[in-house]
Amino acid sequence: MKIVAVDGTVSIKRDLDTGTDTQRQAVEEIIAQVREQGDQALFSLTKKFDGAELQQLRVTEQEMQNAYKEISDDIISAIRQAIDNIRDFHERQTRQSWMTTKEDGTILGQKITALDSVGVYVPGGKAAYPSSIMMNVIPAQVAGVQRIAMVSPGQADGCLPASVLVTASELGVEEIYKIGGAQAVAALAYGTESVPAVDKITGPGNIYVALAKRAVFGKVDIDMIAGPSEIVVLADEQANPRYIAADLLSQAEHDEQASAVLVTASQTLAEAVAAEVEKQLKTLPKKAIAEASIRDYGVIYVAKDLVEAIDVVNELAPEHLEILTEDPMKLVGKIRHAGAIFVGPYSSEPVGDYFAGPNHVLPTNGTARFSSPLNVDDFTKKTSIISYSKEAIEQNGRQISALARLEGLEAHARAIDIRLEGK
Amino acid sequence: MKIVAVDGTVSIKRDLDTGTDTQRQAVEEIIAQVREQGDQALFSLTKKFDGAELQQLRVTEQEMQNAYKEISDDIISAIRQAIDNIRDFHERQTRQSWMTTKEDGTILGQKITALDSVGVYVPGGKAAYPSSIMMNVIPAQVAGVQRIAMVSPGQADGCLPASVLVTASELGVEEIYKIGGAQAVAALAYGTESVPAVDKITGPGNIYVALAKRAVFGKVDIDMIAGPSEIVVLADEQANPRYIAADLLSQAEHDEQASAVLVTASQTLAEAVAAEVEKQLKTLPKKAIAEASIRDYGVIYVAKDLVEAIDVVNELAPEHLEILTEDPMKLVGKIRHAGAIFVGPYSSEPVGDYFAGPNHVLPTNGTARFSSPLNVDDFTKKTSIISYSKEAIEQNGRQISALARLEGLEAHARAIDIRLEGK
Repeated sequence: MKIVAVDGTVSIKRDLDTGTDTQRQAVEEIIAQVREQGDQALFSLTKKFDGAELQQLRVTEQEMQNAYKEISDDIISAIRQAIDNIRDFHERQTRQSWMTTKEDGTILGQKITALDSVGVYVPGGKAAYPSSIMMNVIPAQVAGVQRIAMVSPGQADGCLPASVLVTASELGVEEIYKIGGAQAVAALAYGTESVPAVDKITGPGNIYVALAKRAVFGKVDIDMIAGPSEIVVLADEQANPRYIAADLLSQAEHDEQASAVLVTASQTLAEAVAAEVEKQLKTLPKKAIAEASIRDYGVIYVAKDLVEAIDVVNELAPEHLEILTEDPMKLVGKIRHAGAIFVGPYSSEPVGDYFAGPNHVLPTNGTARFSSPLNVDDFTKKTSIISYSKEAIEQNGRQISALARLEGLEAHARAIDIRLEGK
Repeated sequence: MKIVAVDGTVSIKRDLDTGTDTQRQAVEEIIAQVREQGDQALFSLTKKFDGAELQQLRVTEQEMQNAYKEISDDIISAIRQAIDNIRDFHERQTRQSWMTTKEDGTILGQKITALDSVGVYVPGGKAAYPSSIMMNVIPAQVAGVQRIAMVSPGQADGCLPASVLVTASELGVEEIYKIGGAQAVAALAYGTESVPAVDKITGPGNIYVALAKRAVFGKVDIDMIAGPSEIVVLADEQANPRYIAADLLSQAEHDEQASAVLVTASQTLAEAVAAEVEKQLKTLPKKAIAEASIRDYGVIYVAKDLVEAIDVVNELAPEHLEILTEDPMKLVGKIRHAGAIFVGPYSSEPVGDYFAGPNHVLPTNGTARFSSPLNVDDFTKKTSIISYSKEAIEQNGRQISALARLEGLEAHARAIDIRLEGK
């Protein structure tokens, strides 16, 4: 892992994959086909892309029950504990509608309403991602969304992995479709005979899913389109290099484009971590991926002191930040930009990926400067309430119409004047 | 104004203006030019598009002081009262960071941080829009944004309208640039010698501004890109048709594409409002615009009863909703989708546009199904805090690594295991 001195601007930004022309065109055609042909398009595209001849799009109760036979009690218990933790954290994010009244009879307020319906995309392929289901479904449920539909591409036999079905079942999600790719996104956005349209689509996916989400945005809402994952570790000389190396590699195994960065003022720690990364890499099952990630997007920045190191972290605005320094909680207030902060030696990033409670869907690629983890607010919207009394309009009407005329909007002014005339 | 019976799906959605190829290309070229040439591009593009030969980009203190000479005391007093009301409402939206602790030493939390810097676009041209400045600047200030920069295209002499400068001054905004169009958006996103880059750009503008905001999104955050404005009035037979007609026209005068809709179960009211609209239209200064809007996007829906009328409103998901029925507050709970709800006969929409306190930047084109008025949250972001103790990892570690292995992510599992080994 390369060790470099901090010198001028630092950045872990990478160009977002916006797809090739061919990919974008393919996505447009798929969306058009689903809009025109509905379910029929879903059956034929699922056969074409996933190799599965589906009898029906929706997962049956029988399939849900069978899935439990394949999952051990220990795993079910871990899934249940994770769900409890995640639900507990997100329940603390809920907000109340509020109103305020004035003596002249004015009532002003802000009403919070859950979205009517949400679609959650769950990636398929070789691996299954139960954690992704929990992290997308739970904030929507806590927000009060009445209808949550899940889509996920099936395996070649059309079935979904048992861990996916069990996790959905534990969450109480029963509307699951065995479809994936751009066609699943199109179905959720526009609706088909079997798949009613939703108001918002969340969840990660490959480039076709990302392009389809971008294309349907405006018709429905979408969550952020995530870039490759990142971790930045801020550490001093007392930190354990073995822990740091393991955490850097847990990020690097995700993706060749994932970025793992250590920022420290200690040259000794820098060298120890670099050596540990080499050592731990050797026995990883995803060695090739992790190696490419560390080579292309891994770096150890050596700052002249902790103050400069913190500046580097704020400049990077990482998705995940671990602080492994003496008295790490004291530094949390100095971090202005990060998706999630993992404090101290036992807060390894996977603690947050799976289990602790906060959401693992986090802003990537420097967008922590202005974006937030997925949260309950993302599944609600606000409506302003304005109730003016006769007394209030008589008191303030002339000021309001003066402001309207200042902007050259005479009909606005007259809408007030007509009330002042009292006719 | 046409009167139609409710019959099947209703909608006020219009295709969003995504610009012509020529417009999109022009915007791309302008952004590239600003990125390459910085200030020099801003001077030459301002000369080209606004006809102004600027000596410097930034408004001087002298210009700010001179502006006060042109604005009457009554207007200044109305501006101050509006600012007070808007600030008071938005201060009720602020949120606290929070933390929760467990007996095993776990600390979880959510930290709220204001964005570092925001750029506010203020449209120029013939009219001036002080209300737009207030509605964009105040939530940012209340959120705690340290740096707020304003941009607005000057008149041919390079100056900004006095009402714009006075409003900015009353708000304490001192960083103002006399630039507009795509070049101003590019400067805010990428920075030039005189205009430091910001983290988020908000505020309305013409198609070039909208396309430029879309193009820089990702580099910086942006607010929603608004479609044409809409009002829906829900009224029963006791409502005053003159008030309703005046409010419909106040929306219609904005834009030929603006949409003004009445939903009622009373045929009598429908006819009375249609007649009033014709009558009031005749004397409006912006008669031609309002007439086109009413003709193309104005409609009176007659429902069979109030229940059906409410369904129509939720289907339309309007930006502005006025309720002029008997006991209108009782209906607020039945409205699931609206940007702002104006309750009762004295809550004319302009009350909210200028003065009452809630934000006038609202979701258009049906997006009230999933979007909110501009608010303080839009100028903050959240960061999750996770601090696990040794005890917590020893207690939960095996469940966490089991979940990681279920997803095939061995390095994640090992990052936990290495802590359990305690080395």
